[in-house]
Amino acid sequence: MIKNDLFLRALKGEVVTRPPVWMMRQAGRYLPEFMQIKNKYDFFTRCRTPELASEITLQPIRRFGMDAAILFCDILVIPQAMNIEVEMKSNFGPFLPNPIRTQKDLDRVIVPDVNIELDYVYKAIKATKELLNNEVPLIGFAGSPWTVFCYCVQGQGSKNFDKAKAFCFSNPIAAHVLLQKITETTIAYLKAKVKAGVDVLQIFDSWGGMLSPNDYQEFSWKYINQIIEALKNDAPVISFGKGCWFALHEMGKSNAAAIGIDWTCSARNARYLTGGNKTLQGNFDPSRLLSPPDEIKKMVHEMINSFGKDKYVVNLGHGILPNIPVDHAKAFIDAVKSYNG
Amino acid sequence: MIKNDLFLRALKGEVVTRPPVWMMRQAGRYLPEFMQIKNKYDFFTRCRTPELASEITLQPIRRFGMDAAILFCDILVIPQAMNIEVEMKSNFGPFLPNPIRTQKDLDRVIVPDVNIELDYVYKAIKATKELLNNEVPLIGFAGSPWTVFCYCVQGQGSKNFDKAKAFCFSNPIAAHVLLQKITETTIAYLKAKVKAGVDVLQIFDSWGGMLSPNDYQEFSWKYINQIIEALKNDAPVISFGKGCWFALHEMGKSNAAAIGIDWTCSARNARYLTGGNKTLQGNFDPSRLLSPPDEIKKMVHEMINSFGKDKYVVNLGHGILPNIPVDHAKAFIDAVKSYNG
Repeated sequence: MIKNDLFLRALKGEVVTRPPVWMMRQAGRYLPEFMQIKNKYDFFTRCRTPELASEITLQPIRRFGMDAAILFCDILVIPQAMNIEVEMKSNFGPFLPNPIRTQKDLDRVIVPDVNIELDYVYKAIKATKELLNNEVPLIGFAGSPWTVFCYCVQGQGSKNFDKAKAFCFSNPIAAHVLLQKITETTIAYLKAKVKAGVDVLQIFDSWGGMLSPNDYQEFSWKYINQIIEALKNDAPVISFGKGCWFALHEMGKSNAAAIGIDWTCSARNARYLTGGNKTLQGNFDPSRLLSPPDEIKKMVHEMINSFGKDKYVVNLGHGILPNIPVDHAKAFIDAVKSYNG
Repeated sequence: MIKNDLFLRALKGEVVTRPPVWMMRQAGRYLPEFMQIKNKYDFFTRCRTPELASEITLQPIRRFGMDAAILFCDILVIPQAMNIEVEMKSNFGPFLPNPIRTQKDLDRVIVPDVNIELDYVYKAIKATKELLNNEVPLIGFAGSPWTVFCYCVQGQGSKNFDKAKAFCFSNPIAAHVLLQKITETTIAYLKAKVKAGVDVLQIFDSWGGMLSPNDYQEFSWKYINQIIEALKNDAPVISFGKGCWFALHEMGKSNAAAIGIDWTCSARNARYLTGGNKTLQGNFDPSRLLSPPDEIKKMVHEMINSFGKDKYVVNLGHGILPNIPVDHAKAFIDAVKSYNG
């Protein structure tokens, strides 16, 4: 079905001639064609208009020819559907004017019918699949329940998500109620995404690394694993946790198709900690794309040699930064395509 | 000389009946008596007035009886002495109006005579030693060169210090010049601190965890190790790197008297990665002080059992947060004192 199935084969652990490559946040602010759309339409208009979301999703594929597309969307569409107001403020980021901090706040949080509340996402998937014309697979994503919870409680981005953690440690029962509601909504949402056409799922646990190993198991991994278990027969699930090196052993034993690695964990440590047999994805430092293109090429080839070409998906260790020159992003992608052992 | 030398003995690796305890940022905003002084005097007045700095340093010792005091000061007194303007904005944090981003910026950075520029620190040390009356040892601290560099280039706090990293990766030669200048200033400063009376030194690498393992060696550890080597015969040096688990093996081989551990690294991993023979310090999650006092006590005892009572200094995994109730801080300290294997 899919013409370039390199990504799907790497997720299955098949032997390949070179690893596939895509970049987290590849449909983003470093692209001038993205900025043109961004300057015309606000954030949620871009998410909610299938023509815009699909166009944005395709932009990096047209320019660089990655081996996978990832649907333009946001992790905070989930709390929005759960009756938690979310604003996207320019030069600030997400802002939730009524964060969840008490039992009363919690009472107004619903587990929605995602088929109704998030139908614009499935429309965007269908529009994107048409544009993609089966050239490369399409990834759909969600935030981990813990990461979504962080925003719901903190109300905005944070260096340490102290209010979110305070809620967990002073009122763990209520915290688990909210986490479970987010998990159920996310599972239904991802199932609907697969039904609408995405080929692969990725869960982003951006803030799992704020937790101790024990707390991570209790407040984050438990819920991610529920999602993996619920979705494992629907589509391959990639689990990415930033700063979550300490949980790689547990992740390696899970039914995730692949584990995302950030740039603080060497390939050797990542292979060792995940048990040596899992497909891994990562882990180029996004800031290292500011190095000269020749150096990027050299570092990418070293990275592939370290991870090994099989059971490996080349990616950054987190999202691409807005200040990366497009020819540096191109150097990253081209370096993978020119790799020949 | 020092009546309670538990901390010094733990740093030497001697067998003790219980581990010593102190808390990073123990002289800080969670204390009402600190807030009284904070409301009257601005940040740099508190640092520069020996009567205030020494009073603030003693406050937590009087209230809780930790096994070590740490001189109230700031890591940014170093760039200030190097001719880089530093402001402390309320509800914002440090702000450097003229950050270092070009060769021209770099040219105006000096390696100062720290005996003159930072004489107020040594006066504060002498005043503090008098107040302490040899009850417990006094720690003096500095930021790691990389962490100080981050502020000098970024100009303020940041989630990812993208501008600081961009400077390193696009202009590594200039970056190393600045890092070396900071290192030299820091070494002279710490030598003068020991001469003025501090018993132990701690280096804080708050932002080392933003770097990949290779970049950490090149841009951070190399300079921290210069400091350790230069000071090892002057006083015990504790090296604390937040998020730097990936460098613990290297740190374990260094001449640091102890290695600070953050809460994402389990005691078992920390012992394994540092080689099993180093004094370790840490690593209670600061947010976990929001748990009920009974639970804090239980978790502290578990933590001591995990690290083992010897070659161990009980501490948090990072600074205490402003919103921690004082009786929770007390529960933390008391739990260590009541520990009996």
